[in-house]
Amino acid sequence: MSIRIGILGYGNLGKGVEYAIAQNDDLSLKAVFTRRDPSTVKIMTKDVPVYSVNDAAAHASEIDVLILCGGSANDLPVQTPEFAKLFNVVDSFDTHARIPEHFANVDKAAKEAGKVGIISIGWDPGLFSLIRMYGNAVLPEGNDYTFWGKGVSQGHSDAIRRVKGVKNGKQYTIPVESALERVRSGENPTLTTREKHTRECFVVPEEGADLAQIEKDIKTMPNYFSDYDTTVHFITEEELIKNHSGIPHGGFVIRTGTTGENNQTKHTIEFNLKLGSNPEFTSSVLCAFARAAYRLNAEGVTGCKTIFDIAPAYLCKQNPDELRAHLL
Amino acid sequence: MSIRIGILGYGNLGKGVEYAIAQNDDLSLKAVFTRRDPSTVKIMTKDVPVYSVNDAAAHASEIDVLILCGGSANDLPVQTPEFAKLFNVVDSFDTHARIPEHFANVDKAAKEAGKVGIISIGWDPGLFSLIRMYGNAVLPEGNDYTFWGKGVSQGHSDAIRRVKGVKNGKQYTIPVESALERVRSGENPTLTTREKHTRECFVVPEEGADLAQIEKDIKTMPNYFSDYDTTVHFITEEELIKNHSGIPHGGFVIRTGTTGENNQTKHTIEFNLKLGSNPEFTSSVLCAFARAAYRLNAEGVTGCKTIFDIAPAYLCKQNPDELRAHLL
Repeated sequence: MSIRIGILGYGNLGKGVEYAIAQNDDLSLKAVFTRRDPSTVKIMTKDVPVYSVNDAAAHASEIDVLILCGGSANDLPVQTPEFAKLFNVVDSFDTHARIPEHFANVDKAAKEAGKVGIISIGWDPGLFSLIRMYGNAVLPEGNDYTFWGKGVSQGHSDAIRRVKGVKNGKQYTIPVESALERVRSGENPTLTTREKHTRECFVVPEEGADLAQIEKDIKTMPNYFSDYDTTVHFITEEELIKNHSGIPHGGFVIRTGTTGENNQTKHTIEFNLKLGSNPEFTSSVLCAFARAAYRLNAEGVTGCKTIFDIAPAYLCKQNPDELRAHLL
Repeated sequence: MSIRIGILGYGNLGKGVEYAIAQNDDLSLKAVFTRRDPSTVKIMTKDVPVYSVNDAAAHASEIDVLILCGGSANDLPVQTPEFAKLFNVVDSFDTHARIPEHFANVDKAAKEAGKVGIISIGWDPGLFSLIRMYGNAVLPEGNDYTFWGKGVSQGHSDAIRRVKGVKNGKQYTIPVESALERVRSGENPTLTTREKHTRECFVVPEEGADLAQIEKDIKTMPNYFSDYDTTVHFITEEELIKNHSGIPHGGFVIRTGTTGENNQTKHTIEFNLKLGSNPEFTSSVLCAFARAAYRLNAEGVTGCKTIFDIAPAYLCKQNPDELRAHLL
């Protein structure tokens, strides 16, 4: 019998979850819930219904885990506590500063309902957090570094598109290779924002727009670009579609530390991701944690959990004997 | 109040544990147990007693967790189940093929005694196993690759020293960079033993020894060298001491996988370690899991556990609120 999954929100992340479920034979998609008119939402999996999110409660008994695929700014702060009253839930809430508050809200709702709510799942927060934690635990005297990219930043791409004279655009965050090398060497550098990442923008201007002004407006934009070395390329809409339609991302977590007599022995722990699609990878991580949510709740666990609280074995389909024999 | 640690076996690993305890202010060394005459064992920490291993039972109430620092071939298969009858224990048992049997023995002893025994802790098995598991869980359609090095293989160094005419020697296992690049590219290559690693030997010959014969004997040695491209350098004892006294190691775990429509989206997960000292790093991991052993047992958990069974938060000194606020 497979674990019955529901998807709430059918954008890039929801579609990614649908693909990921198809790769896991112990998971099955039972329903998609949408805020749109369900008759307008066509999904890929055959014979799976699309319901209005307003009807979710009526289907609570058909779903073991609901994967929430909304955004962190407006959707998840409301949705995750709300749906934790009805379902075991998993989300990818990624506003680092608001995690404690989100945790408290989900914990209260999930405990009252006897459900499990797993929050902030993906790769950062998510797998990167995990590596930061293991790194801190095993090398207590050391330093953490996180670099992002090369990848598309949705927020920075949106910012470009708000500039006057810009028709369309995409922004890549790029880690500075020489900074990565300094970190890997164990030098423990103190790096400024500018030294860690560069930003590369591909901009489709409106006809007759002032290109020099666009470039200046982007490069001097506070918070988004002014603290970085930024490159602006002007391209056509066709080039943007042809060469920049993907949503790749990735990054690096590096922990350097020392051990031994007088702390003279150097060690470097590095974890890096190169993701062809940010939402598809995040979706795959969400599905692994949906499995964990189901199992934990089946054992009687309730309340909010993060990636730090879940023993790794809960994520894998294989039983503990198989895991010890083949992966340990 | 700190967690009271005992060390059993005072070789490189035991000394590494002693250094690591000094880096963790919630751990304190309470005793070292040795098979040697305790009066001949001088440890670094002041005012900590060294006892004969035969007297360990008498000190059970003084120790929260005993870290077993013996070898996997002969010591741990006997010691870990034996001492799990008296103490919460952590070991670095690394004979992959015998893990299921070792697990069963430790599980039985620890459950009967109401203790926790955590086995196979370190980096492989250990952190590498963990990354293999997370990689499998989040990218179920993919391939695993593990490379070791550059680092000293104790077993291969021992094998060199058994060759006729060899006075001393050290062997480095080196991953083949071009193989790493093929794996990282997502090509999913099938790699032979020879294609993954090379072996580099530094040999101090006895006076008048037949160097050509030594080189031939090493390179053709079955199991150890005959399946690899091996390089042999003859050096003096002084050079060996000066340049090859360290015990560095490390390696790479890479998971490549695909997601999305028709599995066309490629992803690469890479974890790598560069360790200045293999035993010191392993010791540091052991100490983090000693903390987990103590906490789990304090919650009433008993029996044998591996790195797969332990929620990451148990490894860290910080409480869950701090972890969520700062590391997630």
